[in-house]
Amino acid sequence: ASDSNLIRVTLFPGDGIGPEIAESVKQVFKAADVPVEWEEHYVGKEVDPRTQSFLTWESLESVRRNKVGLKGPMATPIGKGHRSLNLTLRKELNLYANVRPCYSLPGYKTKYDDVDLITIRENTEGEYSGLEHQVVRGVVESLKIITRHASLRVAEYAFHYAKAHGRERVSAIHKANIMQKTDGLFLKCCREVAEKYPEIKYEEVVIDNCCMMLVKNPSLFDVLVMPNLYGDIISDLCAGLIGGLGLTPSCNIGEGGIALAEAVHGSAPDIAGQNKANPTALLLSGVSMLRHLDLHDKADKIQNAVLNTIAEGKYRTGDLGGKSTTTDFTKAICDHL
Amino acid sequence: ASDSNLIRVTLFPGDGIGPEIAESVKQVFKAADVPVEWEEHYVGKEVDPRTQSFLTWESLESVRRNKVGLKGPMATPIGKGHRSLNLTLRKELNLYANVRPCYSLPGYKTKYDDVDLITIRENTEGEYSGLEHQVVRGVVESLKIITRHASLRVAEYAFHYAKAHGRERVSAIHKANIMQKTDGLFLKCCREVAEKYPEIKYEEVVIDNCCMMLVKNPSLFDVLVMPNLYGDIISDLCAGLIGGLGLTPSCNIGEGGIALAEAVHGSAPDIAGQNKANPTALLLSGVSMLRHLDLHDKADKIQNAVLNTIAEGKYRTGDLGGKSTTTDFTKAICDHL
Ligand SMILES: CC(C)[C@H](C(=O)O)[C@@H](O)C(=O)O
Ligand SMILES: CC(C)[C@H](C(=O)O)[C@@H](O)C(=O)O
Repeated sequence: ASDSNLIRVTLFPGDGIGPEIAESVKQVFKAADVPVEWEEHYVGKEVDPRTQSFLTWESLESVRRNKVGLKGPMATPIGKGHRSLNLTLRKELNLYANVRPCYSLPGYKTKYDDVDLITIRENTEGEYSGLEHQVVRGVVESLKIITRHASLRVAEYAFHYAKAHGRERVSAIHKANIMQKTDGLFLKCCREVAEKYPEIKYEEVVIDNCCMMLVKNPSLFDVLVMPNLYGDIISDLCAGLIGGLGLTPSCNIGEGGIALAEAVHGSAPDIAGQNKANPTALLLSGVSMLRHLDLHDKADKIQNAVLNTIAEGKYRTGDLGGKSTTTDFTKAICDHL
Repeated sequence: ASDSNLIRVTLFPGDGIGPEIAESVKQVFKAADVPVEWEEHYVGKEVDPRTQSFLTWESLESVRRNKVGLKGPMATPIGKGHRSLNLTLRKELNLYANVRPCYSLPGYKTKYDDVDLITIRENTEGEYSGLEHQVVRGVVESLKIITRHASLRVAEYAFHYAKAHGRERVSAIHKANIMQKTDGLFLKCCREVAEKYPEIKYEEVVIDNCCMMLVKNPSLFDVLVMPNLYGDIISDLCAGLIGGLGLTPSCNIGEGGIALAEAVHGSAPDIAGQNKANPTALLLSGVSMLRHLDLHDKADKIQNAVLNTIAEGKYRTGDLGGKSTTTDFTKAICDHL
């Protein structure tokens, strides 16, 4: 019995602490009166004992139908031939852009204040092509693939995002002084798109220099767009600036408006089931998902409640130096709504 | 008339501020009574007007003969078909390991205290193979090459270095969860070498996680060894932690004991010839070179004089927030010897 006024959202709680933090999201969304109906599917390290399948057609179809999903951490299935489930989902659903906002959490002190960065990562090709082979014994090669199609697509998304979110500048991160053809093509595409957005400043920064500048002064950057591996590296670096992957949201954007938001931290099997997990990354990923759905009021409301709870400092989970349980932290957020 | 008691060292002052900081090194080495004789060659952006050559046989031969050299920053020659001179030198001289120590300078405050890291970068292959091509219009690929030979060689150097310098741990940095064959081979070689050094701890860290941990707490690491591009990225990140490339030494190690130390910052054409340049990176690279030559007394003496001058704070160049000229800063260092 589904209510047609509700937005159906696919939920993959995932492994380890996944179910606990997914439960937290459900409670907070309910307390905030977000008009969603969850469609829950298990995807994770436990394979179907009969078929050895780890990803059902139904799970994929659910995201394709709903066009929006939220996923917790998934461990890689054990055994030969299994790729990371994160990668499989990105590939199967053609999730071409990975958006990772990263901002300082008020009241949670790190070495950096006022971090406010958006990493937009090409999510389908580059160094993640999966094409590798042994040439002769002791000599192996991997292929990095850059296409005009995927580069234009992610650049377009980055400028669109910058404009929609009132951002001033897009920096394309590259190593075209070494990989002149691949990163060169990526830059060429970024330049083409930049011309269509004269109101957004555009610059190009070499990845090594970018990393040095980020640790010296992250406020030099705004929106960063880049090929796959650089995005992997830089988004983690940025997360480190504000406290780690337990605090940063992530959202994967696919063709036809599909969005799969995800917590990118691990499944933390050591604390799973102990009511100790920090649901912040999944909650803020839920907020990213709501913004994608243009539900900005609800997004603001939940984001503020999460940030205020952390800022207040009374309820914090162990990873943030506190002693709260997941349920108490979640309750505190609901009280802030 | 060469004195056979002197060690002959090839000096490439380079472009921009190169000649000024090279002059500073010559003065400090002289004041410290280092038994060297400089053999100076110009290598840089100015090509020979008749032959368009930018790197003479004599320059290369000088390093090969002396087995030790020091280089300043070089701008890439203008015009089609010129590769970075840094890369050309690495390739021609088969400089297989790039060693970049990175430590906090006493008295020069950044967000991080007590940084003490050594990045050891494979310097000849990986993503820097130079092999790229267009497959069809709009589809390009670059090859990352990893060989057993080069991986064992750099791993061997890293463990040898760790042992010789009383270091506790070597971390191999990789993305073998994605590039299973290339980075997988790199790790396999590191593991093989690690077994020969049971007294040195060994661990493997995924590059994205490594960057996050480095910005959160750099003291988690000690010696880091990795393929070419990761080394490029991580060494700049580390330099950022302590203030930038103007403060960090670098030394390239080749077969047969060749060492080419270098300042890895740019040639800063905007301040060239104005007596404003900071010679610290080239001086500390000179110190690395002296350590390679086992002249540890002289190395300690110069290193202490540089660090004490900066710590004292009376003489600092503009990039460190001071107003000293290169010559005054250099004189202050000589006075500290
Ligand atoms: C788990 C791993 C395959 C993944 C990646 O490399 O993309 C992760 O690091 C990420 O950033 O989502
Ligand atoms: C100038 C450039 C080619 C070089 C590199 O990428 O290796 C530089 O960044 C370095 O680290 O020495």
